[in-house]
Amino acid sequence: MTRGQVLIFVIMYNKPPKIIIEVSARHAHLAQADLEILFGKDYQLTVLRKLSQRGEFAANEVVDLKTAKSILRHVRVLGPDRDYTQIEMSKTDAFYLGLAPLVKDSGDLAGTPGLTIVGPKGEVQAEHGVILSHRHIHCSASEAQKYGLKTGQLVKVKVLGKRGLVFDQVVIKVKDGYSWHMHLDTDEANASGVDDSNNVGEVIV
Amino acid sequence: MTRGQVLIFVIMYNKPPKIIIEVSARHAHLAQADLEILFGKDYQLTVLRKLSQRGEFAANEVVDLKTAKSILRHVRVLGPDRDYTQIEMSKTDAFYLGLAPLVKDSGDLAGTPGLTIVGPKGEVQAEHGVILSHRHIHCSASEAQKYGLKTGQLVKVKVLGKRGLVFDQVVIKVKDGYSWHMHLDTDEANASGVDDSNNVGEVIV
Repeated sequence: MTRGQVLIFVIMYNKPPKIIIEVSARHAHLAQADLEILFGKDYQLTVLRKLSQRGEFAANEVVDLKTAKSILRHVRVLGPDRDYTQIEMSKTDAFYLGLAPLVKDSGDLAGTPGLTIVGPKGEVQAEHGVILSHRHIHCSASEAQKYGLKTGQLVKVKVLGKRGLVFDQVVIKVKDGYSWHMHLDTDEANASGVDDSNNVGEVIV
Repeated sequence: MTRGQVLIFVIMYNKPPKIIIEVSARHAHLAQADLEILFGKDYQLTVLRKLSQRGEFAANEVVDLKTAKSILRHVRVLGPDRDYTQIEMSKTDAFYLGLAPLVKDSGDLAGTPGLTIVGPKGEVQAEHGVILSHRHIHCSASEAQKYGLKTGQLVKVKVLGKRGLVFDQVVIKVKDGYSWHMHLDTDEANASGVDDSNNVGEVIV
């Protein structure tokens, strides 16, 4: 190399995408038929607070969840209605209720335990529907393309702090209109120190 | 290379050491003075079950933990007595009680919140002492030498399964007589799917 020459190296490097992590406390999704048993005929959920995913909301309505062992009161209902009733809770909650649900994706309710759902107008004996939510990332079609992701793919997400860790087995859910957020349950958030002031993860594809 | 020659490659490779992971439910360590207030003068704890670390045991004795917000009943006391009273709980428990303890190592009680400890003979108003336990590994001097570990060092521990993850920030505690075990709280165990049938981690130094 002679004096005066300039050598430029260009290194292609994709920085791992960041993601906001949201924490899902225990909650219930209700089928319309169950909603009407619990709250009355033709009942419609009312919006307490919109959630990050378009169209989804925390309702003003709450229910109690009852088993032979115990009861969890004032459990938030999320809207809108679904085709199936599904209860998502932490493993801590499940232990308290004497249940042993498995880690499942939404809607995969075969073989899941049930419980009694209590509303102001009636009770539903749910034969099944209780799950521990499989930790997941909501991803729009454009982000899926940008990061090379597809539905069902498993990625890792790194969280920093005194309880820092790398979540493995984070499942990708791609759908147009989805907003780029990761969802954990309260056990997972507490274990990783994720809270309002430490809610950014790094996605490792 | 001529016919008949044999080539042998020897690759030195240290397999990451495996470790049994134990789960610590909420519990109390009591100073003798507090033990006597709670259970009576000259009271001695009685052994329910020996723990993995030499000399340590779950006692038959339990206490209630009370705050302005709520109460946790039948919380196990661990023995033997310590010089200081310390309450270890999950963040889920702390939230239930309306407390916001930090992740701390045992004995590091400066600035920690307190609560009321209720025993059969009296109550202790603990000004401080509530912590979230810093996830840790007990390590004997010989394992410390074998794996090149020292007290205070941070390592990673990998856990497999549907909630698989890699714990970061796992602190090493070296002491002769310690038994090679990792300790998590219930939030951490629930978040990582660690239970009696999935309790082996891989230590990454």
